[in-house]
Parts: sequence; C-alpha cells; structure tokens
Amino acid sequence: MSNLDPAMISRREGHMESARALARRSRKALRVLRQSAHETRNKALLAMADRLQQSAAIDSILEANAKDLDAARHNDLAPALQERLMLNADRIQSIEQALRVIAALPDPLGLVRTGYALQSGVQLRKLTVPLGVVFTIFESRPNVTIDIGALSLKSGNAAILRGGKEARYSNQSLHALFQQAILSVGLPGDSVQLITESDRAYMLACLQLDDLIDIVVPRGGEALIRFTAEHSRIPVIKHDKGVCNLYIDRAADPEKAIAIAINSKLQRPSVCNAIENLIIHTEYPHTQALLAKLATAGARLLGPADLARQYTDVSPIEADLLPTTYGTEFLDERLSVALVSHLDEALDFIDRYGSGHSEGIVTEDFSTAQRFQQGVDTAAILLNCSTRFHDGGQMGMGAEVGISTGRLHVRGPMGLQDLVSTTYVLEGHGEVRP
Amino acid sequence: MSNLDPAMISRREGHMESARALARRSRKALRVLRQSAHETRNKALLAMADRLQQSAAIDSILEANAKDLDAARHNDLAPALQERLMLNADRIQSIEQALRVIAALPDPLGLVRTGYALQSGVQLRKLTVPLGVVFTIFESRPNVTIDIGALSLKSGNAAILRGGKEARYSNQSLHALFQQAILSVGLPGDSVQLITESDRAYMLACLQLDDLIDIVVPRGGEALIRFTAEHSRIPVIKHDKGVCNLYIDRAADPEKAIAIAINSKLQRPSVCNAIENLIIHTEYPHTQALLAKLATAGARLLGPADLARQYTDVSPIEADLLPTTYGTEFLDERLSVALVSHLDEALDFIDRYGSGHSEGIVTEDFSTAQRFQQGVDTAAILLNCSTRFHDGGQMGMGAEVGISTGRLHVRGPMGLQDLVSTTYVLEGHGEVRP
Repeated sequence: MSNLDPAMISRREGHMESARALARRSRKALRVLRQSAHETRNKALLAMADRLQQSAAIDSILEANAKDLDAARHNDLAPALQERLMLNADRIQSIEQALRVIAALPDPLGLVRTGYALQSGVQLRKLTVPLGVVFTIFESRPNVTIDIGALSLKSGNAAILRGGKEARYSNQSLHALFQQAILSVGLPGDSVQLITESDRAYMLACLQLDDLIDIVVPRGGEALIRFTAEHSRIPVIKHDKGVCNLYIDRAADPEKAIAIAINSKLQRPSVCNAIENLIIHTEYPHTQALLAKLATAGARLLGPADLARQYTDVSPIEADLLPTTYGTEFLDERLSVALVSHLDEALDFIDRYGSGHSEGIVTEDFSTAQRFQQGVDTAAILLNCSTRFHDGGQMGMGAEVGISTGRLHVRGPMGLQDLVSTTYVLEGHGEVRP
Repeated sequence: MSNLDPAMISRREGHMESARALARRSRKALRVLRQSAHETRNKALLAMADRLQQSAAIDSILEANAKDLDAARHNDLAPALQERLMLNADRIQSIEQALRVIAALPDPLGLVRTGYALQSGVQLRKLTVPLGVVFTIFESRPNVTIDIGALSLKSGNAAILRGGKEARYSNQSLHALFQQAILSVGLPGDSVQLITESDRAYMLACLQLDDLIDIVVPRGGEALIRFTAEHSRIPVIKHDKGVCNLYIDRAADPEKAIAIAINSKLQRPSVCNAIENLIIHTEYPHTQALLAKLATAGARLLGPADLARQYTDVSPIEADLLPTTYGTEFLDERLSVALVSHLDEALDFIDRYGSGHSEGIVTEDFSTAQRFQQGVDTAAILLNCSTRFHDGGQMGMGAEVGISTGRLHVRGPMGLQDLVSTTYVLEGHGEVRP
C-alpha cells in the first residue's frame, strides 16, 4: 500500500471532524429512510422529475453548467471530458425520464429472500433491508448525481456523493433541486448529501469512517478506483476497467463471427463492455474475411509481426509491447488480435490479460462452449452473442449503478436489487435453545 | 488509518515476493478447482475424515498439540486460551464428523440463481461459481484449520489459512494430513495452503495482494479484525463482536420473558449471540421477578445506581462508566440492565450500544413487534425467542464460517452458500445489439 505523504495525512486529519459530522447526518437520515414508505420515496423522485421540467430550474442548471464549461475550457480539459460535462435541454430531459423509470420500478425492500420453519417451531425469514450509508465517488458527468442519488433513495439508503471538481457547479445545482424535492415529501434533506469540499484529503477522511459509512462505490478511471481501494477502510464495490475478449473458435459460424465481432467492438467503442482483444483459432478458416470486414467497418487492428505479415489489415506491434497492448482498455477503435492453436491457449490468454468483465465465444461446438464457460473466471460469459449485451438495461434490470468486477456482494451489473442488505427475522412463541 | 511503523513496512516489503508466490500457487490451484467435480472435492473431505480415524494420524496430531500446549504453559497463556488450544481424541473425532457433515451437504456451485430470456432472444442465467482465493486469519482453535479448509474446498475455492502462533504445530500437523488427502484424489495440494511464517508482516504482505486474493475472513478478537480491516486492500468479511440486546416490552408475557432472558444470557455466555444488555420497559409489571430469576440462574446483574437501589439483585455501576458497560461484550455471566419508558428509547439504546448482531424482543403486542422489527438495524431480529437461535446450525444452514456483522455479500451466518460468487451466462444464436 502506498503510504500517504505527511502533508496529505495532516490535511486528512484536519477534515476528520467535519467528515464525521457529515456522515452522522447521513446515519440519522438513514434511520428515517429505513422506516419510510416506498410510496414516499417514489414521490421524492417524481417531485424532482417535475422540477426538471420547469424552465426556471432548467435555466439555473444550465447557468451552473456554463460556469463549469467555462472553467473546463480555461483549464484545457480534454474535449471528450468537456463533452461529457456538457448539459443541455435534451440531457436534462434524459435525467428527468430516468427518475420516472426508477420511480416505476418495484420496491427492493422487504422482499422475503428465503423463509422456512426451524425444527424448534421458530419461523425464519430473510428480508431485504437498506444497505445503509452509501458513499459514491464519481467523475465528470453531472447526471450521475441524480442517477445514483435516486437509486440510493429508492432503496432506502442514505447517499453521500462526491463528484469531480470539474462539475462542481452543475452538481451543486442539481443536488440543491433534489434536496428540495426530498424535503417536499417530508423526508430528511440529508438523505442525499453532496460533498462540496474539493480537497482530496476530505474524501480520504470519509474513507476512514467505517463505523458510519457502509459501502463505497468509486465510478471512474482506474486511478480513482485504485486510490479508493488502497485508502478505504470501508468495503469498496469496484467498477473496474473492461479488458473484454472475444474468442473465435475454429468451429465458429462465419456470419455470426463477423456480426458479433463488429458489434462487440464498434457498436460503441468507448464503453467498458466493448472488446479490446480478438482471439482467433489458427484453424478457423475465415480469418482473412473476418479481419477484412472488421477493418472495413472501422476497427484498427493490431497484432504480432507474423500475424501482420499474414493479414495486411493488421498493424504490427513490437514483441515486447504486445503484453501491454493485450492488457490495455483502448476505449476506441483499436482492436488487438491474437492467434491460438487450442482452446486452453485462449483460456490462458483471457486469464492473463482479461479484467474479468465480459468474455465472449463464437462456436457451433457444444463441448467447446461448455469448456469455455467452465474455464473463464469473469462477471459475464457471452455464448454466440455480442459482449454489448452485458449491461443492466439490456439484461432487463433497469438502471444500474455500474458493472461490478469484484466477486463479493455483486458481480456484473449493480442494480437496485443489489443496493440492499438482508436481516434475518426469527419469530417464535417463547422458544429457547435446549 | 494508523500508519505502520517503518520497520514493519520494511519487513512487509521483504515478504512480498514470497507472499506473491504463495498466492499465485493458490490462484493456479483455483483454476483446477473451478473445473473439478463436486464428487472429487467431497472425496478429499472423506479421505481426510478417514485419516482422522487412524491411530497413527491421531498420535501425530496429539504429539504436535502437546508441543503447542507446552509452549502455552511456558508462555503463561490464559487458561481459557489453553483450553481452546487443547486437542484430544474426542475433539479430533468432532473434526472428523464435521468433515462428513460438510461432505454430505449439497453442491453450492452451478446453481441457477435466476434465469430468463431477454427481448433479443438471448437466454440469461446467473450461476453460482467459486468466490476465488479465500484468505482466513484465525486464532487459537486448531479445528478451524480443517473446518474452513473443508468449507472452502467444498465450494471450489482455494484457501490460504493463517492460524495463531500458539497453535502452529497443531495446525501444521492437521494441514499436512489434509494436503495428503487432497492430493490422494488428484486435486492440487495448494488447494489449501497454510502460512507457516509467524511474522505479522507476512500477513500484511498477503493483505496487499488484491490482484491474487479475493476475500479475507478474519476470525478472532476485535483487535485482529480491526487490524485486518485497516490494512487490507482485499475485501474483508468481518465477524465482529456481539453486543446483543434483549428488550422486555411492557406487554411481554412474564413466562416467556424469564425463559428467553435466561436462555439468551446463560445457555452459553461465552459466545457472540449471548446477550449483554437487558432493556426493560418501566411499565413492565414483573421486573422484580425477572431479575430475581436471572440472578438465581447465575447472571450477575449490573445497572445504574437508582436501578440498583430499587432492585437488590442489581450491582450499581458508576454513572460515567455506564456507557462503557453497555457497550462491552462480557462473554461471561455479567448482564447489564437498563430501564426505558418508551420503545423509541429502547431503539436508541440498541442503536447506540449494540453491534448489529442480534436484537431480541419479548412482547405480546403485535404493533410493538412490528415497530421493533422496522426500527433495529441488525443481522438478526428475534421476536419472542432466544437470541441463541441466531446460529448457522440452529438456522438449518449446516457448518458456518462465522456470523458476519457486515452488510455486504452476507449478513448473519456465513455458510457454504455464501462462499460463492456468480457469473452471468448469456447464450445467444448470433444476436447483436441494435
């Protein structure tokens, strides 16, 4: 673990009191939320959606966003990040609609996960309850403030949000409106709190409070996630990078191979479930056509020198740079290609370079599909379909907090149903243990 | 977070290479375990059980245990800890029987947690898979080596075990036998590894390896759990202390109140689901009789001075020591008593002093029971029955790794069914995302 420098530790200690007070307010709000009616929590979401249709509110959000955009231009923020930061009437409408969709989802609380009678006569039920105080750390996109706030509130959790400095005015404006909406239905304003202190040491102070905060969800780049995991005493749900792989078996159907490879790479290259590596069996007879179609469709193929000599669509990569290339999440049109002469080699490749996010296979061979399924250790396995299906929306779960690459609590899309914990209720008639 | 002293950090860094090699061996074993048959894993458990019936094996274990006990006496280890350390023929037979019970449990892997068809025609299944490499840190009792090793192996996980120094010879002896049993069925010997390096810095080195180890389970005292949570980069499942509370409502049935209070406190005072605090409504008419019965049964009652004046069975505690008293897990016959004049006061008390483990209520009032259930935030709620029912065995789950007081992944008894993660399998026919 990288130790923090003394100046950072000293600043962190300076923030402890304020962070503790903030977390205590969340804990207090949580006690009310735990006992609130589902309908009341939904009303808060709909009240916020209504506010986002009012022109005064829209104007105030756009005004705040303009300040952030000015600062972004002034600070030469990368154009892609400026684009993510930007809000307009359409994007605000998307936030409004997302709120209505979340409000319409069923209550994730009070579900009986299991229930049976014990030998003693005691009745056992395992009920879903709020997770508690949920601390989300995110970057850039201001809509996350409302998405995560709404999902947390819906599931009876108290949310602490820490957005990026670049979106501070936009986040504050959205949060202020949300707090009004929450207060308007009689729930505590502290149900969703936004950290306005931009010093990273404040975030570090919060990450110490494992007696008050129950879970941390970092959403953003690798550096943010790494930093959070290293310095948090609180359990972290990682939404890590996706180095996703697609394996074209020798028994792959050529039509399916082309369609799935193109879709997995190019339908939206900038997202985590797009593939970075294409692994092809040496005996697959249609490699030439597959690579040509991918190149025509816009993929920029990279691979070892001998492969590049054989297939002119592939640009050669120096041998010593290949491991880095195969381990990189490009988030653009680049696609690394590797040839393997056996399924086990493909599994080794995935084990070595993959990030345990999404692994696809195209094959008509039933046994190979089974062995692939048993052999990869990942959040999602895609058999003869695009890796782009590994998505909460596509999988019918509604809005998602992110895609968890961890193995505890939730693996894959983290939806409303994963923002809960459980409590056992044992109901007796005076029974004691003999 | 308490920063480590430089000498400890330097020793930790010195152990990194060896720790990494150890964890890599576990990861390699995991790949085999993931694809192993349930029957093979069970055969390893039964082979170990058979070994524990052979007199040569029993003798070698007892010989190793005698060395530990000698050292314990030499080092003036507390008698209670010496007692926990001690093995004899009976205790070895218990380990053997536990192995057979675990082997007889159903396979926790490959279960379909949910499954449905997506709109696109893709079939979705959420399957249980091993969690991965499970690192368990424990103290004193050597049987844990086999209990945890067996539960991990059964569920296809690779186990890394780190026992207490005081049980080193016993643990090594049991582990060597277990490894033989595992090898005898053709599974990797590294499926269950025991750390023999007793330097705490070695454990710290392991706690850095979040790329190789998936979960840490500390079992032991508060200090061990705290230390692990503070210094681990790997997610921790806490099995924390139990400051359990029993609330006697004014509408409690007096017979049930006496039976449940006595059982909850005295059936086995040294365990985590025994109560430490008895909260009584001021209008409960049978307080005198309840306290007298508890005292007669062996409880040593503690409480505020005014309560002690009113009820002679209660020993007075100085006012400034009361908060510490109410927050202490005694693990013996002491029982703190508090009077409250309202349910909300009882809920406040539990919120303040309880550890979120087990909270009981005795009442005949339906609304009060409901409000209690909604108002406490805990792993288990016991309505009109003993807190001693909050136990994996009593709850029909078979052997347990411990009782989790965390909210992520598992809350309450952690059994075989919680030693798993999940993988989504999406099975298509060439589908791509539009």
